[in-house]
Amino acid sequence: MYQNLHNNLLFKELKYSKFFSDRMHGIPRSFIREILKVAICNDIISFAGGLPNRDIFPVKELQESTQKVFAIGGKDIFQYSNSEGYLPLREYIANRYYDKLNIKISPDQILITSGSQQGLDLVGKVLIDQSDNIVIEKPGYLGAIQAFSVYKPEFVPIPLYENGIDTFVLRSESDCRDIKLLYAVPDFQNPSGISYSETIRNEVADIAESKNFLLVEDTPYSDLRFNGQSTNNFYKMYPHRTILLGTFSKTVVPSFRMGWIVAPQEIIDKLLIAKQAADLHTNYFTQRVLYQYLTDYNIDDHISKITEVYGRQRNKMVECIQEYLPDGCDYTKPDGGMFLWITLPEGLSSMDLFNLAIKRKVAFVPGNPFYTDGRDRYSTLRLNFSCSNEAAIETGIKRLGEAIMELKQQV
Amino acid sequence: MYQNLHNNLLFKELKYSKFFSDRMHGIPRSFIREILKVAICNDIISFAGGLPNRDIFPVKELQESTQKVFAIGGKDIFQYSNSEGYLPLREYIANRYYDKLNIKISPDQILITSGSQQGLDLVGKVLIDQSDNIVIEKPGYLGAIQAFSVYKPEFVPIPLYENGIDTFVLRSESDCRDIKLLYAVPDFQNPSGISYSETIRNEVADIAESKNFLLVEDTPYSDLRFNGQSTNNFYKMYPHRTILLGTFSKTVVPSFRMGWIVAPQEIIDKLLIAKQAADLHTNYFTQRVLYQYLTDYNIDDHISKITEVYGRQRNKMVECIQEYLPDGCDYTKPDGGMFLWITLPEGLSSMDLFNLAIKRKVAFVPGNPFYTDGRDRYSTLRLNFSCSNEAAIETGIKRLGEAIMELKQQV
Repeated sequence: MYQNLHNNLLFKELKYSKFFSDRMHGIPRSFIREILKVAICNDIISFAGGLPNRDIFPVKELQESTQKVFAIGGKDIFQYSNSEGYLPLREYIANRYYDKLNIKISPDQILITSGSQQGLDLVGKVLIDQSDNIVIEKPGYLGAIQAFSVYKPEFVPIPLYENGIDTFVLRSESDCRDIKLLYAVPDFQNPSGISYSETIRNEVADIAESKNFLLVEDTPYSDLRFNGQSTNNFYKMYPHRTILLGTFSKTVVPSFRMGWIVAPQEIIDKLLIAKQAADLHTNYFTQRVLYQYLTDYNIDDHISKITEVYGRQRNKMVECIQEYLPDGCDYTKPDGGMFLWITLPEGLSSMDLFNLAIKRKVAFVPGNPFYTDGRDRYSTLRLNFSCSNEAAIETGIKRLGEAIMELKQQV
Repeated sequence: MYQNLHNNLLFKELKYSKFFSDRMHGIPRSFIREILKVAICNDIISFAGGLPNRDIFPVKELQESTQKVFAIGGKDIFQYSNSEGYLPLREYIANRYYDKLNIKISPDQILITSGSQQGLDLVGKVLIDQSDNIVIEKPGYLGAIQAFSVYKPEFVPIPLYENGIDTFVLRSESDCRDIKLLYAVPDFQNPSGISYSETIRNEVADIAESKNFLLVEDTPYSDLRFNGQSTNNFYKMYPHRTILLGTFSKTVVPSFRMGWIVAPQEIIDKLLIAKQAADLHTNYFTQRVLYQYLTDYNIDDHISKITEVYGRQRNKMVECIQEYLPDGCDYTKPDGGMFLWITLPEGLSSMDLFNLAIKRKVAFVPGNPFYTDGRDRYSTLRLNFSCSNEAAIETGIKRLGEAIMELKQQV
């Protein structure tokens, strides 16, 4: 019988679909992965990625921090650790919030996560029941859409404009249904690059307060400001109903997968149970290396280097858009972060544009995956400016402009 | 209004329970964390932990591997990486299965996870719907109970004996209900230390085949054999219906959180989507360090060091149990792993014993958390032998014997 079961025929006849949980049916496939596969071929200038610029990684500093951890850490840097995360690292994060934003947070209210993507998953796990109404931005961050989709919510997408989400629509949506939480990236949003104005922040928080829902404030790019002044954040205004997500992926390095969640104690306690069940704790060795780096070096000096480069590249991209893109293309002018958002003239599809652009050896992410309403024609697209130098930006945007002209002539 | 909302009264009046998802209500609290807190105080000899022995960690080797990764890895060791895991690491794992167990696995069928705890969470996420019948061992591994509980299954606990689970009960349970999957730790099980006989393995797999359910085979301790011969595994017998979980936590170091899942391609594809939503990918820097270590050193030499120590300590513990524990105490005699399981004479509660033992400065884990039927009186307990040297084992088991005598007199 044992041999029999190795029989290829039997093997192939086993149907796995009956074993899969309902929750896995609605998860969006990774559209961006497919796009990126195309984008890494043959001399293509890619604005499709979402990566920080590897040339600015503090490699030497991290090497020294790692050596120091080996020297002072002893054997315990390799043992199991607690689920909350390394206490000195949580203290560092708390102190930084106090120094930068004048927010008092206890280290006990901070949970170290395996990147802020895990923060999103834990938030979904702990808070979202099937069919709960979850407000997201339209267009919204793909990683959050994926993480939350697993828990089968009803997404309530609210249009995003230059100064934040449409609070009129938010108010009317929250009048006619019970909202569980609102997810937002208020600073230099992914994919749009826009930031919420002080007024919009106040209005959103006011609606959350009156309608009693939670705010999930995701801040991966908040430190990467190259223009203007830092604004208020939801956590500072409404600490009792805000879950604040942060990460070192954009300010130090992504491969460490080091993020954190700040939340009211009762919520952190639940998140901690979920964290334990999810992976026991985040890589402790790397928590120690990161903490050593943060202690031995000034992260703000490093962030200045990043924003200097990204700011220059963003300026170049905006200039080139003005120069090379045909009339009728709208675009955002981010004050920080890594992305910029283009809206094509009415009637042009960014998916159609993608095919023409690839022929001209320039890539971007069409708007589609950032929407949850499942249409297949959008006129929007995301451009990344953190990973291309100014010469590549000039050539790439010029090609993009030519592709748009070609598309206009076809329509 | 803004100041007003900072008002402590309002803050305290906000009730968070209405926000929590249903799935978080049934999760067992971390009983073991509480136990461990007691166990680290004041000269207590603790058999309560579940940690590998830190004195055997290959610190120097890992330091050299890390330096090498810095030297040859360049900036990309710090960039985002793919969700599947570092390909050479997956190839290493595949080759090792071939060399050790003569099992052919494609690296594409391997997914690197953030410890095998994440493997459990992903398996739960992808396969378990509410009220699905999930067979677990009784007593069963706590981490799996926690991870699966989030997805609200119906646990079907099957008694565990010296040679594996009770296949008569398994057969009758699977006759009267639809089983989704069976979770087992067939080698040196946690908490019991027992291993499945060849006969039981065949019977279990045979039942899975005839009743069409999946086998989740967790193998954290399988390499840590100090007695006897390696036996067959479920994956080798039934690759088409087995999900195999592995980890480097017990053979290299736990703080890296490096585990893996092997499964049929269609299942891996779903797990990969869940992995992406859960944390994008496992710490890539540490994947590179681990791979370097595995390439530059012979892990089997290192495993020999571990099993030599654990085997000696296990022998000492068995000797001391025979010498110091009163008649009527039953115990397992593991051929590997880190744990041994005691059954007290009829009527004695291991929770009552815990309190007496702590007074005598010896700690263990009472059986309670390893059962899913929610009773509070069990006569079983888990002893860890990986972290105590022979002198500590002698003193500790002597104290335990005295505590059992005291308990017997009280009853």
